[in-house]
Amino acid sequence: MNVTNINIKDKKLWGGRFAEATDGLVELFNASVGFDQRLAEQDIRGSLAHVAMLGQVGILSAEEVEQIQSGLDDVLTDIRVGTFEWRLDREDVHMNVEAALRDRIGPVAGKLHTARSRNDQVAVDFRLFTKEAALDLAAKTRALRAVMLAEAEKHLSAEVILPGYTHLQVAQPILLSHWFMAYVAMLERDEGRLRDAATRMDESPLGSSALAGTPWPIDRHATAAALGFARPTANSLDGVGSRDFALEFLSACAILSAHLSRLSEELILYSTFEFGFLTLPDSHTTGSSIMPQKKNPDVSELARGKAGRVFGNLMGLLTVVKGTPLAYNKDLQEDKEGVFDSYDTLSIVLRLYAEMMPKTVWHAEITKAAAARGYSTATDVADFLARQGVPFREAHEVVGGLVGVASRSGRQLWELTDDELKSAHPLLSAEIAQTLTVEESVKNRLSYGGTAPQRVREAVEAAKAALKQ
Amino acid sequence: MNVTNINIKDKKLWGGRFAEATDGLVELFNASVGFDQRLAEQDIRGSLAHVAMLGQVGILSAEEVEQIQSGLDDVLTDIRVGTFEWRLDREDVHMNVEAALRDRIGPVAGKLHTARSRNDQVAVDFRLFTKEAALDLAAKTRALRAVMLAEAEKHLSAEVILPGYTHLQVAQPILLSHWFMAYVAMLERDEGRLRDAATRMDESPLGSSALAGTPWPIDRHATAAALGFARPTANSLDGVGSRDFALEFLSACAILSAHLSRLSEELILYSTFEFGFLTLPDSHTTGSSIMPQKKNPDVSELARGKAGRVFGNLMGLLTVVKGTPLAYNKDLQEDKEGVFDSYDTLSIVLRLYAEMMPKTVWHAEITKAAAARGYSTATDVADFLARQGVPFREAHEVVGGLVGVASRSGRQLWELTDDELKSAHPLLSAEIAQTLTVEESVKNRLSYGGTAPQRVREAVEAAKAALKQ
Amino acid sequence: MNVTNINIKDKKLWGGRFAEATDGLVELFNASVGFDQRLAEQDIRGSLAHVAMLGQVGILSAEEVEQIQSGLDDVLTDIRVGTFEWRLDREDVHMNVEAALRDRIGPVAGKLHTARSRNDQVAVDFRLFTKEAALDLAAKTRALRAVMLAEAEKHLSAEVILPGYTHLQVAQPILLSHWFMAYVAMLERDEGRLRDAATRMDESPLGSSALAGTPWPIDRHATAAALGFARPTANSLDGVGSRDFALEFLSACAILSAHLSRLSEELILYSTFEFGFLTLPDSHTTGSSIMPQKKNPDVSELARGKAGRVFGNLMGLLTVVKGTPLAYNKDLQEDKEGVFDSYDTLSIVLRLYAEMMPKTVWHAEITKAAAARGYSTATDVADFLARQGVPFREAHEVVGGLVGVASRSGRQLWELTDDELKSAHPLLSAEIAQTLTVEESVKNRLSYGGTAPQRVREAVEAAKAALKQ
Amino acid sequence: MNVTNINIKDKKLWGGRFAEATDGLVELFNASVGFDQRLAEQDIRGSLAHVAMLGQVGILSAEEVEQIQSGLDDVLTDIRVGTFEWRLDREDVHMNVEAALRDRIGPVAGKLHTARSRNDQVAVDFRLFTKEAALDLAAKTRALRAVMLAEAEKHLSAEVILPGYTHLQVAQPILLSHWFMAYVAMLERDEGRLRDAATRMDESPLGSSALAGTPWPIDRHATAAALGFARPTANSLDGVGSRDFALEFLSACAILSAHLSRLSEELILYSTFEFGFLTLPDSHTTGSSIMPQKKNPDVSELARGKAGRVFGNLMGLLTVVKGTPLAYNKDLQEDKEGVFDSYDTLSIVLRLYAEMMPKTVWHAEITKAAAARGYSTATDVADFLARQGVPFREAHEVVGGLVGVASRSGRQLWELTDDELKSAHPLLSAEIAQTLTVEESVKNRLSYGGTAPQRVREAVEAAKAALKQ
Repeated sequence: MNVTNINIKDKKLWGGRFAEATDGLVELFNASVGFDQRLAEQDIRGSLAHVAMLGQVGILSAEEVEQIQSGLDDVLTDIRVGTFEWRLDREDVHMNVEAALRDRIGPVAGKLHTARSRNDQVAVDFRLFTKEAALDLAAKTRALRAVMLAEAEKHLSAEVILPGYTHLQVAQPILLSHWFMAYVAMLERDEGRLRDAATRMDESPLGSSALAGTPWPIDRHATAAALGFARPTANSLDGVGSRDFALEFLSACAILSAHLSRLSEELILYSTFEFGFLTLPDSHTTGSSIMPQKKNPDVSELARGKAGRVFGNLMGLLTVVKGTPLAYNKDLQEDKEGVFDSYDTLSIVLRLYAEMMPKTVWHAEITKAAAARGYSTATDVADFLARQGVPFREAHEVVGGLVGVASRSGRQLWELTDDELKSAHPLLSAEIAQTLTVEESVKNRLSYGGTAPQRVREAVEAAKAALKQ
Repeated sequence: MNVTNINIKDKKLWGGRFAEATDGLVELFNASVGFDQRLAEQDIRGSLAHVAMLGQVGILSAEEVEQIQSGLDDVLTDIRVGTFEWRLDREDVHMNVEAALRDRIGPVAGKLHTARSRNDQVAVDFRLFTKEAALDLAAKTRALRAVMLAEAEKHLSAEVILPGYTHLQVAQPILLSHWFMAYVAMLERDEGRLRDAATRMDESPLGSSALAGTPWPIDRHATAAALGFARPTANSLDGVGSRDFALEFLSACAILSAHLSRLSEELILYSTFEFGFLTLPDSHTTGSSIMPQKKNPDVSELARGKAGRVFGNLMGLLTVVKGTPLAYNKDLQEDKEGVFDSYDTLSIVLRLYAEMMPKTVWHAEITKAAAARGYSTATDVADFLARQGVPFREAHEVVGGLVGVASRSGRQLWELTDDELKSAHPLLSAEIAQTLTVEESVKNRLSYGGTAPQRVREAVEAAKAALKQ
Repeated sequence: MNVTNINIKDKKLWGGRFAEATDGLVELFNASVGFDQRLAEQDIRGSLAHVAMLGQVGILSAEEVEQIQSGLDDVLTDIRVGTFEWRLDREDVHMNVEAALRDRIGPVAGKLHTARSRNDQVAVDFRLFTKEAALDLAAKTRALRAVMLAEAEKHLSAEVILPGYTHLQVAQPILLSHWFMAYVAMLERDEGRLRDAATRMDESPLGSSALAGTPWPIDRHATAAALGFARPTANSLDGVGSRDFALEFLSACAILSAHLSRLSEELILYSTFEFGFLTLPDSHTTGSSIMPQKKNPDVSELARGKAGRVFGNLMGLLTVVKGTPLAYNKDLQEDKEGVFDSYDTLSIVLRLYAEMMPKTVWHAEITKAAAARGYSTATDVADFLARQGVPFREAHEVVGGLVGVASRSGRQLWELTDDELKSAHPLLSAEIAQTLTVEESVKNRLSYGGTAPQRVREAVEAAKAALKQ
Repeated sequence: MNVTNINIKDKKLWGGRFAEATDGLVELFNASVGFDQRLAEQDIRGSLAHVAMLGQVGILSAEEVEQIQSGLDDVLTDIRVGTFEWRLDREDVHMNVEAALRDRIGPVAGKLHTARSRNDQVAVDFRLFTKEAALDLAAKTRALRAVMLAEAEKHLSAEVILPGYTHLQVAQPILLSHWFMAYVAMLERDEGRLRDAATRMDESPLGSSALAGTPWPIDRHATAAALGFARPTANSLDGVGSRDFALEFLSACAILSAHLSRLSEELILYSTFEFGFLTLPDSHTTGSSIMPQKKNPDVSELARGKAGRVFGNLMGLLTVVKGTPLAYNKDLQEDKEGVFDSYDTLSIVLRLYAEMMPKTVWHAEITKAAAARGYSTATDVADFLARQGVPFREAHEVVGGLVGVASRSGRQLWELTDDELKSAHPLLSAEIAQTLTVEESVKNRLSYGGTAPQRVREAVEAAKAALKQ
């Protein structure tokens, strides 16, 4: 994180003399510069747009505008190269920037704050950040979607088979590619949620001033446009007092985290000795010096665990917002850290998964053998009989009996003899038994959205087309 | 709630003999009919669409289709009139309906379940419910928005003035209508979130079967269309295993709840003796037999408190989803109650607020007097001086001094004498003092989105046009 | 649940005529009898104690006391047998009981409410319930602890070996009994939390009256004693306005739920085809008519999933309490359902686990084979060398090399030849290789709290002694 | 925070070349040194205890012990003075310390890790921290309790009267001291919860090793004693895998936060212009340069808002723990930040309140006038009549009538004439009217725990005695 260089006037402030230095403790408690300095770029962009507009409408002279803009550019450069001195006694990013500007260009700096307040300044900074964070996570979610889709396609030609589970018990065989496509579908919706959030928050609160608007003849449409917003917010109270944009962002993050946690849960399981379905890449696991085969799936474990913190961030801000009357209350200062943290967490998890999935090796023989367990094709027999006109309930009973015969003798359904099959039901025979392999089962599931290779191939093509949009 | 008529085979099951009746306890624990019977309408609609499609593609004969549809209609009638006997030993709504159908039309009922499983059945039922719930809450949110907008318009002609608060300290005067319009803006976004959620979940999982699709030649597009879905889901695993649609619905509910809680917080405050801004209608408060002036704002208190349960519902389901591998796990049975509860809670809160707001009486004299407190127009003096070219920081100092003079003598700013004003700054005079009333302050805030009557009038017109779309 | 027989004055209240029947909707929203009737026993016990005290201090005559007590007994009987008519228009359990009392004994019923208010009445009812719920869950937690301990002892003589996992990768072999004892330790602390909560809330708020106490000469110590409380609360505002007792109960429930969810997670894993460590009893799983070997671990899945709702209940009430000034606010009405639901949920989960664990069959051969995988005894070689004076880091390297040799040739460490061992390090030999079995590894871990049979046996004895206390 | 001096091998790691530097990203994601360096003191204390024990039982020689201890002392000094170089490539605090030790004393450093693993090392470090955090917050909670108690006593002699609220509507007058004593009671329980948590977690996991114990002849009782723990944990799996101690700590923090939020909510209200009950000290509020009377109650607003983050921390860790099988999983790395953050947050809030409350000025005239509003003594009339034998319900009706008379003529109850009173009920007279002042009302509420000065005085004395224990 870029929390660096915090200048605390008195380093011992955090030490033993709290009781005396009362004011210092309050200052420290109130100060947000420790985390909101992260908004420095947004803050300066907001100021640049504001000052340009003040010039356009004639509130400031061209010269004043130029002086302030040039000074802000200098401040931004200092911040970027890391030579800016953040001061706790200047409370927050806004005051730090403004004071540094005054240090550089003198009293004219004071004109920058004409026709705005810290309330709309923080609102516009934070909205810029959150909108960009939403769009960036949307792009990263899309990138991971492309990776999962490529994996689906990669395993499609070999028609790698995986057990499909319900209740974590083998249920029916599916294509590994089909499994990948399930995550493609989830990630597509996750991206949609992030983009919807970005669109809904695409309004500039700048110019709402403290809460009631301002008597200055400002042009809010101009600043909104300069900052890349679709339009200004329509109500000044709402502009400075609302944080549903952050809540919507956090909600989309929480749901995405839940999906990534499900994926993680599956990868952790599939990489155990007991499942043995896949080998995670060395580069994305940690080992043990004495157990060379031990590959701890740290990335997946952390991705799973970090869902908790994202949920916590959402719960925290919901609680804060729920309890505050309009317009701004200091409680709302609590809005930022959870957004930063959720953004950082998901940024890294999405990138790591996009890297890790293509390097993950799937063991097709093992997954196929696993898929055959548990008489996973038994429903296919029942379906066969039902298609011959046997009432479904009767068909089910016949199959139950067959599974009993097979399991008692330790065989699979396709290892039953012609006699055994015919005595169970006259419509059955050794011929049908050959169709009870996992390959046949998969091939037959031709319904739209089903796991048959033909269907999955179409789904992959459709998903590729969707990605190109 | 329509939780009625639950037939528990042995009423004493909940009693003292748990230890012996082991199986009964498991049955009870697993059974979901106590709450999922609420999906009965959706379940039968799903079955009607499924059976019609089975007829269309030739899996069932026209006669079979007719028999089953007629039987389902009868079952639905029984449920609607309340004569249906729900049985716990039949586990869930699906089994209750199917068994009741078999009781009526005999073995042909078994054909209804051809080419589907309980997994896609519950998925389609719950999605139908959640989509309708989202749209219904969207409509109710819109209705409350219309009410708040009407209130804004109602108070506009009289230009009723309210204190605008930051930190719950009087900051600047605003129009009461402007305050209403802030909630109009919030509710508009809340509706948007609910509609976006409804749109994103507008896909039919029916035909996903257990998890892999089905070998039966079904037409999923037909059932999707018959049920009013935009299209079928594209992946069967995702179709039965995903619950992000419910999470997105709950997120939208949580944010809406937070907004309604803020509104409640303000109304509770404003209806205290100490604020005295408004009188809630008798019909929506409870009193006390010995304190006739006491009007407990129960509706608002409950609306505020119930935000907690909606947050809890979201937290609960996030936790559940986060921990489950694909596809269906029994944990997911926990998805429904939170959605039902959030829907019911918000339905009633939205209706009550839509009723209560128009009956709430605002005391314009009191709000105006309150708005004048705290030298709420001091920033207007500073703005005046700054507009005359006085550097902002100097202007601020001048005003600080004036406020000191006024407060020491218990006067408002507009009660200062010409001498006092001029000695503070030569550009000031008694003339300017007259512009320091709350009315003038409000009138001057003409920036877009500001509280000036002209701006609020435009905002009201725009909002009315938006509502008509 | 005992939510029965709710008499809604006008059944159509929930129907289409909300707009007109405004008051009805508010009434419905405010009414709590739908859930707080569950406090009927506590309510009547509280009233019996109150009225007896009113007699003792001379506020009521002996005859009045007798009349009221006899009437309350009748009401309680009606409630118990299910003939009591709950009326929504009487709002809550308190008003329903009092009104029913008046119906029976006439105006003297009105004297029952002398020197108390609904605020302290609901506080005492809910505290009685929560304290009893805490103690009951403590007892059920203890019962499950006894079961887990018995299981530990059962598997101890055979010294059944289980893989110990970190990161869900096989790490070191342990005794199955040792695994059971880990849950014994967790459950012991869970019980402690519940009992601490019960002890801390063991104070009677009765007599706090509305919020300020009462001028009546009541004896709060007498009612506290009669109701089995350790003492009365020391501050009337706190008595009626605090709900931390419910929050502490919910916290203890949430932590217990997390532990039960971990246990569930392990059982779900261990009962998969892939792990194959155990077979859950038929009575506690559900099957499928066509997949007879499929045993869905529903109890464990639901137990895992239901942790989410308990967390949600805690989150909900924290949010409510956090936002309310003293003393009573209607928001606090939201305190009960989460407590009831958490209590019911954990009651059934604890009972089901106490039933299910002894019927669960562990497959010792499979677990032992699994425990040997992954060179789980490699650390034992390193420890052996280190004990001979070889620096630890050097020892680790030696073992790393040996594991490489073994894994490349598909052998276990104990299958290495004398030559291979000696060439790795002169202190090694075929003799030492024989000590590298999982049994030896387990036997050697003799540190206090370790998995050596001797240690586990002592731990079992100590835990049995602790249970007898 | 003491997050300083992090040496990232490649500063650009966070920059644009993620895609290439794959391993670096994983390293960064996995590394915990950014936050767990906070455990450095605990880590070294744990190592000192461990190495001393290794000497005692003869595993290490006296010389080796001395070398390692001396080296650890040096490392600790470096950390304390801030010259220690934390390295991200050394992952966590444990590896950083151990590597630094090796840099200083050479290979003998490797012997420190004999008979322990990182799993029990982190478990013991984090438990030490959490236990100390719990005890420290308990002490700070006690300190605030002492402050609130002193305030109660301070305002007792003047018998300052405050309105008691229900539903935020004036209900009955109470003593300001009584209000303070309500928080004394809450804080006492909060302290109890923190101490109970500290007691329950007072067990040393050191020596649990990776998860199964160790074959080395270690003395876990010795290390437990050396570290100030009551005893070692009894089960090694539980020792390294459980985190309920952190959950219990966070629960206690969450409940304490809820209480502090309630207090904050009241102070924010009471310091509004509209209530006007108190003036917060300049030192603990922030002002505005142009509104000198504006005192934003920042401390209280932040304290209220920060409850959200503490709740979020609890929810986050509950979610994490709920989803992990035994024993250690990387997810558990997420346990620390929430504990650190909750501890820091509450530490500062508790200190600030302890400072702020004695400097807060209460305006007794205003609070008394407010307490008289709303006919807050009406129940006293009803109680008077009831004590004369008038049935309660009749008494209530009489009073309701009187309040009507008074309110229609804008008078208080004690301003009614003798005639008016007598015509309402013959037992009433001007004499009784004089007892209807707020002072009389308060004086009469003599029940145990009531607000009568005599009772509050006793309560203060009892609380002082309790504090001395």
